Amino acid sequence: MKNNFQVSQNGKLKHLLSTDGLSREIIIEIFDMAESFLKISSRDVKKVPLLRGKTVCNLFFENSTRTRTTFEIAAKRLSADVINLDVPTSSQSKGESILDTVNNLIAMGADIFVIRHGTPRIPELIAQNVGNDVHIINGGDGNHAHPTQGLLDTFTIRRFKKDFSELKVAIVGDIKHSRVARSEICALSTLGVPEIRIIGPENLMPDDLDHLNLIHFNNLNRGLKNVDVIMMLRLQKERMDDGDIPSEEEYFKQYGLKREHLKIAHPDAIIMHPGPINRGIEIESEVADSKQSVILSQVTYGIAIRMAVMTMLVSKKV
Amino acid sequence: MKNNFQVSQNGKLKHLLSTDGLSREIIIEIFDMAESFLKISSRDVKKVPLLRGKTVCNLFFENSTRTRTTFEIAAKRLSADVINLDVPTSSQSKGESILDTVNNLIAMGADIFVIRHGTPRIPELIAQNVGNDVHIINGGDGNHAHPTQGLLDTFTIRRFKKDFSELKVAIVGDIKHSRVARSEICALSTLGVPEIRIIGPENLMPDDLDHLNLIHFNNLNRGLKNVDVIMMLRLQKERMDDGDIPSEEEYFKQYGLKREHLKIAHPDAIIMHPGPINRGIEIESEVADSKQSVILSQVTYGIAIRMAVMTMLVSKKV
Amino acid sequence: MKNNFQVSQNGKLKHLLSTDGLSREIIIEIFDMAESFLKISSRDVKKVPLLRGKTVCNLFFENSTRTRTTFEIAAKRLSADVINLDVPTSSQSKGESILDTVNNLIAMGADIFVIRHGTPRIPELIAQNVGNDVHIINGGDGNHAHPTQGLLDTFTIRRFKKDFSELKVAIVGDIKHSRVARSEICALSTLGVPEIRIIGPENLMPDDLDHLNLIHFNNLNRGLKNVDVIMMLRLQKERMDDGDIPSEEEYFKQYGLKREHLKIAHPDAIIMHPGPINRGIEIESEVADSKQSVILSQVTYGIAIRMAVMTMLVSKKV
Repeated sequence: MKNNFQVSQNGKLKHLLSTDGLSREIIIEIFDMAESFLKISSRDVKKVPLLRGKTVCNLFFENSTRTRTTFEIAAKRLSADVINLDVPTSSQSKGESILDTVNNLIAMGADIFVIRHGTPRIPELIAQNVGNDVHIINGGDGNHAHPTQGLLDTFTIRRFKKDFSELKVAIVGDIKHSRVARSEICALSTLGVPEIRIIGPENLMPDDLDHLNLIHFNNLNRGLKNVDVIMMLRLQKERMDDGDIPSEEEYFKQYGLKREHLKIAHPDAIIMHPGPINRGIEIESEVADSKQSVILSQVTYGIAIRMAVMTMLVSKKV
Repeated sequence: MKNNFQVSQNGKLKHLLSTDGLSREIIIEIFDMAESFLKISSRDVKKVPLLRGKTVCNLFFENSTRTRTTFEIAAKRLSADVINLDVPTSSQSKGESILDTVNNLIAMGADIFVIRHGTPRIPELIAQNVGNDVHIINGGDGNHAHPTQGLLDTFTIRRFKKDFSELKVAIVGDIKHSRVARSEICALSTLGVPEIRIIGPENLMPDDLDHLNLIHFNNLNRGLKNVDVIMMLRLQKERMDDGDIPSEEEYFKQYGLKREHLKIAHPDAIIMHPGPINRGIEIESEVADSKQSVILSQVTYGIAIRMAVMTMLVSKKV
Repeated sequence: MKNNFQVSQNGKLKHLLSTDGLSREIIIEIFDMAESFLKISSRDVKKVPLLRGKTVCNLFFENSTRTRTTFEIAAKRLSADVINLDVPTSSQSKGESILDTVNNLIAMGADIFVIRHGTPRIPELIAQNVGNDVHIINGGDGNHAHPTQGLLDTFTIRRFKKDFSELKVAIVGDIKHSRVARSEICALSTLGVPEIRIIGPENLMPDDLDHLNLIHFNNLNRGLKNVDVIMMLRLQKERMDDGDIPSEEEYFKQYGLKREHLKIAHPDAIIMHPGPINRGIEIESEVADSKQSVILSQVTYGIAIRMAVMTMLVSKKV
């Protein structure tokens, strides 16, 4: 399903719900604006007044201090007022009351919502029910999408690899349950990456992405051969409880990125991870800190990407 | 008891502790200033520098993210710095240590305190113990008062009904234990509403408001006849645990506002609720979303009222 | 061990980790700058743009709303953006992951970290691992140091006593486990206080401060004789659980500051406490509120000291 209502008829970004359905043009516009914010972030006064007088509301039904902080910093750097609301899902019974919560905050004057929720498509549901002056950013919804992560990851690739048109990209881990992987794959595909490989245990391969010509690998060594980009996923501990993943040791043995793999990939391959990393589980500590690792650059670029998205959402361009 | 020390001898608002004892002149001054802030809230940059360099401290001994957020947004829109402090009452033993907490925050430079506490008159106690440069807003104290709610509710009535002098207003629910009802009743009375009806089960009728000529009804149909304003109260679940209210179903059956009631009240009657609403308990979902409902307007006006109160508290007028 | 790497070779403050190793010159520079911020705090608009566009990150692994609030207010008064992160130590396993957390926040653009941690020297460890543009303030680490408290306490003494060179200062309580006492003692010693007395039960006397010529007293009456400054420590309840302190009653009887002691000390002696005070445990209520008490002044000066430290950390002076 395409989330085309996230873009208005004349091509303006109204909401950011998924990288699925975002055109190449919009993605490039976000990237180019993020570049200009990267310059601001290296200035002495890292602040611009683009969202002055606007209120950004971080509405998190799933707790994530780290992700919320990135949106908070991005919004403050744009001079917005930020309201953080952590709402444990337990205190929320039905979709109806989530809409009441959102409508109340809109009545208080919120302009942008960043919404994280354990259930897929809640941000979409909300976007369908708000007026034209209110903008929704999906901050992660179940295993559906995490579009700012997908954008910052592909922006990172553009910065290090310049051109997408000849890249081999590998994504490693539990693809099936990963909203990060889905958002990465859709963006990579739209940006024209010719070869996207997914690597992981057979039971954690997705069954809904067949139209995208992904190449499946169950073996890490074979999957990494000559790739230009290695995108690791974070191990979700709850997968282990489900029995989908045998143990941390066994997972690391089979799918953890280790020094030996760097010789298999392209010598200039970059190593990515959405963070926070579990050292010695998805990735060997030395590899995470190696020269090929761009993990901390991803974090820095993430602020710029979020600033760009927020700016485009409130811009007056019709 | 009148809280006259919330207004100085020459008529300046020093604290906002209760609508009881507030003169009509002061209330109208708050309303007129709130009107001007409503205009600002519809501008592109919803910010004014009236409290720049001031520190507003939200000191909440009872948890309420929603109410705290309204004060936080109001203060930020006035360019104040905001400090949120949630203090579980369990960690507070005696009135003495609350005063120590407040005095510490004053020593740090807090100018305005918004205080919510489960015990009646704690904000008053604090107001009696601070210097002239510090201002206390009661954000709700036990079942005593919630003055900004009372003011925003009556401001909402003024906006929709213009004139108070011929209104019939009904308040429905657990009047006895409701600080919201008390603050509404005092403000309505001061503003000259000739007929205030209270509707609810006999055991939830107040016994301390006899001087105000309230008309008591135990039957919702009879109480709503020809009223211009219907103010619903939120059901306090702890009342049910006490046995004061039989069950949600039974309560809704007897005192929940349903479509059929809209024919009994005046055809232009407005429906109000302090929020958050329990759909299907105090109010039928369709009624809450009907054209006569002004529930979300109350929320918007609440920001303007709180901005007005804060501005008047710190103003230099002698 | 001297923390000399908190000051650069040409004398600029890079981090504030401990008062141990801070030169008299640096301390006086901090005090003089704090004086100028005290003037600003009494103005109508208590704000200066010195940290505009900077991000201060309060990273608290030990919960302390009070201390965090002082840093938050100080940073906001300097126009910094503030990010509060409370990280329960339980969710942190090893020093390695603390560094990952810090490095992520640096990648997001944090300029100053205020770090509180239950383990001694964690702020130091972090300071050794960050680049030149990032500054660490120790907000309290185990029983090692709490340098802003030590500085604000000695700044308070300077304001009330002008000259350090003839003072008798007594510190009362559990010296052994107190980071506050250690930071006070180092600063007092560097500032030239000729007589520092420590008073407490023998089992709570320190065994690592012999080089500083402290005079030990187990008896409160004898220890307070003719002193100019009485610095009370807060009773750490966990000490009682350990059996180090018999009971609150017994402690108050032996080491609680009571009216009778004011006749033993110098008639102009000032009484200090880092707060929050336990009335009737470390200090008699009447004494805490007496004219000789400067406890609330300490709080006010604490904001100015923290503003001064933050300003010096980011200043461009080479």
